[in-house]
Amino acid sequence: MNSEHIVKSFDEELQQLNAIVLRMGGVAEAQLAGSIEALVRRDSELADRVVKGDEAIDQMDLELDENAIRTLALRQPMANDLREVISALKISGDLERIGDYAKNIAKRSIALNQLAHHEAARSIPRMAKLVQAIIKDVLDAYANHDANRAMDVWHRDEEVDEMYTALFRELLTYMMEDPRNITPCTHLLFVAKNIERIGDHATNIAETTYYLSTGKRIEGGRPKSDMSSFQVVEPEDEDSSGEATEREGA
Amino acid sequence: MNSEHIVKSFDEELQQLNAIVLRMGGVAEAQLAGSIEALVRRDSELADRVVKGDEAIDQMDLELDENAIRTLALRQPMANDLREVISALKISGDLERIGDYAKNIAKRSIALNQLAHHEAARSIPRMAKLVQAIIKDVLDAYANHDANRAMDVWHRDEEVDEMYTALFRELLTYMMEDPRNITPCTHLLFVAKNIERIGDHATNIAETTYYLSTGKRIEGGRPKSDMSSFQVVEPEDEDSSGEATEREGA
Repeated sequence: MNSEHIVKSFDEELQQLNAIVLRMGGVAEAQLAGSIEALVRRDSELADRVVKGDEAIDQMDLELDENAIRTLALRQPMANDLREVISALKISGDLERIGDYAKNIAKRSIALNQLAHHEAARSIPRMAKLVQAIIKDVLDAYANHDANRAMDVWHRDEEVDEMYTALFRELLTYMMEDPRNITPCTHLLFVAKNIERIGDHATNIAETTYYLSTGKRIEGGRPKSDMSSFQVVEPEDEDSSGEATEREGA
Repeated sequence: MNSEHIVKSFDEELQQLNAIVLRMGGVAEAQLAGSIEALVRRDSELADRVVKGDEAIDQMDLELDENAIRTLALRQPMANDLREVISALKISGDLERIGDYAKNIAKRSIALNQLAHHEAARSIPRMAKLVQAIIKDVLDAYANHDANRAMDVWHRDEEVDEMYTALFRELLTYMMEDPRNITPCTHLLFVAKNIERIGDHATNIAETTYYLSTGKRIEGGRPKSDMSSFQVVEPEDEDSSGEATEREGA
């Protein structure tokens, strides 16, 4: 620990934590956008840059952890100030995971580039756009300690889950139509799952922001519309080229 | 906050945090074991109990968060003690996620019970057994502040990743052989992915335990052998019943 930090005021320290979180958020947003662009444009070079770019988020996460722990140790903050530090720690953890998921999407886009273009890839950007908007909003809510806005974001995760469940069924149907679709659609399934998980982490950030702003936890269980774990999609008949039928799982 | 807590000694508070983490760990282990047993025995009733049982882990996670934040506020711990509190917060977050993944495996086992038994389901318990052993070891390492043991666990994640990559290819091959395999194998793919993610969280716990025991971070990047994001498996010819060929992705 160097003396530069010790002479900082406590407010400056909190602002610095805040600034790191917002910077991490900006990079995470950009990484997600980049990974989807790489997928859509089939641009392996861009995908490669996204994979390498994750390191920057990991570094910021470490920096934040260290600063937060130092602040806890030296300043022994209480009440609101303590919530600030704990929230920054939690949110940076979520952003770090969002970065990991974007990196994984970029890796899968590289695998997909070895295969024929698949039309299902077009449904992905729509879901990604929704999640990108949610991340932007939740970071604004965090920056402004805006509990109402955090609550709005929290409710929007349901929409993401619904899109994911629909996409899951769509992708399984494509796989059944033609075995050549299996590898690309499996990667697209995991891409969709990654986007859905990013949405979950944005929801975590909304919960933390609400707690930061009000000192209370959001009441009631999280809205959940991801039914994909229960989905059963079956080929219509024993002929493997047949159309698939769908039915709701348990 | 009730007065019972205020009269506790600081050591007692730390021990209580520790005890919650270990209890959470025990429940998470049991949940994972239950979800795999439900899958193998095709026991939807057991799966249902696992799904409902996740609530207990979530409650313990909230309890831990509240206790930890209260301890930080009232005791303003420093150095080792501060690391204890921060580590408990981090590890409980990882255990909460492990619980979520076990719950998801249980949900998928319910969907799988509507389908014919698939032989690929047999490879899953082997991978799960490895991860269960890793969780047990990392919790022992945490309980004993044993940095060497934490380091051992940290290295074993590579083995999990290798099993996952092999299973990923195997499942894709089954899907290509018969479209009726697509739905069960997709659920099994996600089950395998969940187990792999549980392994990652165990690795996080190893890193936190190392930090807790030594005050230092593990040097060097995490060993990574999950190459599944780059896998390309293609049907051998245009006949959908053909054997699949495999090649390494980018």
